[in-house]
Amino acid sequence: MNRPRVVIAGMGFGGLFAFHRLAKKPVDLVLVDRHNYHAFVPLFYQVAAAELEPVEIAYPIRTFLRRRPQAAFFMAEVRGVDLQGKKLLTSEGDVPYDVLILGLGSETSFFGLPGVKEHAFTVKSLAQALTLRNHILTLFERAAWGKGPHEEGLLTFVIAGGGPTGVELAATLAEWIREVLVKDYPPSVMERARIILVEAADRILPGLPEGQAAYAQRVLTRLGVDVRTQTPIAGADKGRVLLKEGPPIPTQTLIWTAGVKGSPVGETLGLSLARGGRIPVNEYLQLPGHPEVYVVGDLAYLEDGHGRALPQVAPVAIQEGRHAAGNVLRSLEGKPPLPFRYKDPGVLLSIGRGRGVARIGKIHLQGFPAWLAWAFVHIAQLVGFRNRVYVLSGWFWNFLFTDRIRLILPGGREPAS
Amino acid sequence: MNRPRVVIAGMGFGGLFAFHRLAKKPVDLVLVDRHNYHAFVPLFYQVAAAELEPVEIAYPIRTFLRRRPQAAFFMAEVRGVDLQGKKLLTSEGDVPYDVLILGLGSETSFFGLPGVKEHAFTVKSLAQALTLRNHILTLFERAAWGKGPHEEGLLTFVIAGGGPTGVELAATLAEWIREVLVKDYPPSVMERARIILVEAADRILPGLPEGQAAYAQRVLTRLGVDVRTQTPIAGADKGRVLLKEGPPIPTQTLIWTAGVKGSPVGETLGLSLARGGRIPVNEYLQLPGHPEVYVVGDLAYLEDGHGRALPQVAPVAIQEGRHAAGNVLRSLEGKPPLPFRYKDPGVLLSIGRGRGVARIGKIHLQGFPAWLAWAFVHIAQLVGFRNRVYVLSGWFWNFLFTDRIRLILPGGREPAS
Repeated sequence: MNRPRVVIAGMGFGGLFAFHRLAKKPVDLVLVDRHNYHAFVPLFYQVAAAELEPVEIAYPIRTFLRRRPQAAFFMAEVRGVDLQGKKLLTSEGDVPYDVLILGLGSETSFFGLPGVKEHAFTVKSLAQALTLRNHILTLFERAAWGKGPHEEGLLTFVIAGGGPTGVELAATLAEWIREVLVKDYPPSVMERARIILVEAADRILPGLPEGQAAYAQRVLTRLGVDVRTQTPIAGADKGRVLLKEGPPIPTQTLIWTAGVKGSPVGETLGLSLARGGRIPVNEYLQLPGHPEVYVVGDLAYLEDGHGRALPQVAPVAIQEGRHAAGNVLRSLEGKPPLPFRYKDPGVLLSIGRGRGVARIGKIHLQGFPAWLAWAFVHIAQLVGFRNRVYVLSGWFWNFLFTDRIRLILPGGREPAS
Repeated sequence: MNRPRVVIAGMGFGGLFAFHRLAKKPVDLVLVDRHNYHAFVPLFYQVAAAELEPVEIAYPIRTFLRRRPQAAFFMAEVRGVDLQGKKLLTSEGDVPYDVLILGLGSETSFFGLPGVKEHAFTVKSLAQALTLRNHILTLFERAAWGKGPHEEGLLTFVIAGGGPTGVELAATLAEWIREVLVKDYPPSVMERARIILVEAADRILPGLPEGQAAYAQRVLTRLGVDVRTQTPIAGADKGRVLLKEGPPIPTQTLIWTAGVKGSPVGETLGLSLARGGRIPVNEYLQLPGHPEVYVVGDLAYLEDGHGRALPQVAPVAIQEGRHAAGNVLRSLEGKPPLPFRYKDPGVLLSIGRGRGVARIGKIHLQGFPAWLAWAFVHIAQLVGFRNRVYVLSGWFWNFLFTDRIRLILPGGREPAS
C-alpha cells in the first residue's frame, strides 16, 4: 500500500499539533508555511512592547523534521487549493496532496472603516510587532528634538479593541513607557505620552466575567491608560483617529486589535463562507464534500453545542489540529472519523507585570496568582528549550532592572552603504 | 564661565570613547547618531552568519546618558557641517556646537565597478547583516523546492575581499552550512552549496605575516572554501560575478567586503580629501584651520611616523576618540593640545570556531590560543553586561549543540494583514 501524502498548510498551532500527531506515523508529510518558523502568537504583543525579541518566540520548522526523512518542508505563500485536482497552490508552485490539513489562520479585519487599513499598526506577525516597536521608539526620539506643539498627539498611542490583545498590549506598553522610557527621556517628553484604549462595546474583555473585566480596567487605569468604552471608531486619516461621536483623537499611532478574519485563501475555494471569512467544516473538521480536506484553527468555522462559534484562540487550534490528525489516522485504518468536541481549558491574561486574570476550569483567579498561571502556561507551551530559557531570563532581567530592549533595529533590505 | 557645548557626531568606537572621557567633565554634551544604539561592528559578520542576533551586540545610547542631565542625544542622519556657523547639519535640524568631534565612520566602497553596488550584499550595518542572512536562508529554502539546474549558482556564495572581514565571514559561513544547515536540508540541496573567496592580490590577509595568512588559507580550504587569489572582480550583473579574466561565476550572492571609504559627509566640507574619502587632520586630530573640530576613526586621515595611513580599525578609532576628548579638556584648561601617537595593540582574527590568528605586541599566535585571545578581547570590549552574557551563552550553545539561529525574521514595515 502506498503511503498517503499528507500536506499541512500553515504551521501555527493547528498545523503544529497535527504534525506532532502524524510525525511518527506511516504517512509522507509535507509542511508548507510562508515563514520558516513556528511563531508563538500569544506573545507577539510583548515583542511590540520590547519585552521580548522575535527570535525568542520563533522556532525553525526544519528542526522538527530532523531525523524524519519521510517529512519535507516547503516555504511558500499559499494562494489557493485545487480541490478537484487535489493540489495546494502556492507562490512557488503546486503541492499535490492525498490529504490536506488547512491551518492558515486569520489576518486583521478593519471592517472596511475608511483609512484604518492604511494608517493602523497591527500585531499579527513578528514583523508587524517589530515595526510597531520601532515606530514607537522613533516617535520618542522625534519628541526629544522638542519640535513642539505643532506635532499634536505625537506620543498619543491609541489601541483599538478591548479584547485580550488590546488589554495585554495596553498594560505592557504603559509599563514600558512609565517605568523604563522615563529613565531615558526628559520630563518634557514624558508628559506628552498617553495611551488610550478604545472599545466600541460597553465594557472591555467581553469573554470574561464582569468582575474580572472590572479588575482589569482598574489595573489599566492605575497604569495611566485612558480606557474609553462605548467609543466606536469611524475611521482614520493621517495624524487622527476619527470617532463615531465626538472630536477626533490626534495621534501618529493607531494600533488595531479590534478584529480578525479568516485567511483570504478561504475566499478562493468557491464555497460560501461563514461570518468573518471562516470556512464552515463538519463535525469531523472536514470540508463538506471533501473528506480528504480538514480545516483547523482560526480559519475553520464550527459551532459548539449551543450554536455559538468556537473562538479563534490557540486552544481551539491545538485541539482541532490534534483531532484532524487523529481522524486522518483513523481513515487510514479504515475507521470512521470521530466528531470534534472542544474542551475549554479557560482563559489566561496578563495585565502588566505580576498581574492578570484567569479562568481555569471553574476556578477564577486575579492578581498575582493569575499572572503566575499565565506565565507558567505560556512558558510551557513555547517550543524549544532555548526559547524558554531566553523568555524566562528576559522577563527576569527586565523585572530585576526595570529594563527593556530599546533598540530601533529594523531588519529587511537597506540600501548598501 | 559658560560650559562649552561639545557635540559628538557618530557613536561608533571613536565617538563612544570620546564620550566616556568627557561624560563627567564640565561640558554640555550632545550626542548625534542615525541609530539609537552603539553597535559592535567587529561582530557584524557573525550576525550575517546567524551566530549572533543584532540585539546582542547593540547597546542603547540613552543608557549612557542616565543620570547625566548635562548630556543629550539626538537621533538623526548627519548631512554636513557648517564650519563657519559652527552648526552640525542633520536630517532633523541643525545642532550648534562650540566643539565638534566627528566620528561618522566609513561606508562600503565599490570602486565604481559596474553593477556591484546594485547587486552586492554588504555587512556594514546590522540591517545589512540581517538582510544577507535572510537572503542566504531564503536561497536554501528555494533550493529545497528542487527547481533544478536552470538556477545555476543558486547556492554559490561569493565573498569579495580577502581581508579580515572576508576571511572571518567565509569561515563562519562555511561552518554554518557544513555543520548546521546540513542537518536541515537533503543532500541534493547541500551538494549545491559552495563558498568562493575572491581576492585581487596574490595573498589573503595582507596585514598579517605570510605564515599566518597561509595558516588562515589552509583552515579555509579545509572548511571547503574555494580561495582564489589574483582574481580581480570586473563587475556584476543579475546572477553573475564578472572577473577580469576567465568565465563569470554564476551566483545570486556577491558579498562585498573589499573596500571602504569615508562617510560622504566628508565631501560636504569643501576640503580636499585624502585617499578613500578620508578627512586629513593635523597631529592633534583637528581639522586644519578649525581647531574646534576634531575628526576621529575611519573618517580621519592621519599618517604614522613612516608615512603610512593609520588603518581603519577599531583600536585606532578608540585611541583617537579618547585623545580628541583629552585635547578638548586641555584646551578648556588653557593648555596646548598634545599630538596623537597610535599604539598598535595588534591584530586578532577568528577563523571559524576555535581557530584564529593573532598578533599581540610582538607575540604571534595561531590556532586555539589565538581564538581564545580573540574571544576574550571581543567579549571584554562589548558594551553591557547583558550583551556579554548573551554573546557568550549564544556561542556556547551553538558550540554545544552545533546549532545556529535559522529564522528568516525580517523587521521593517510589512503590510498590515
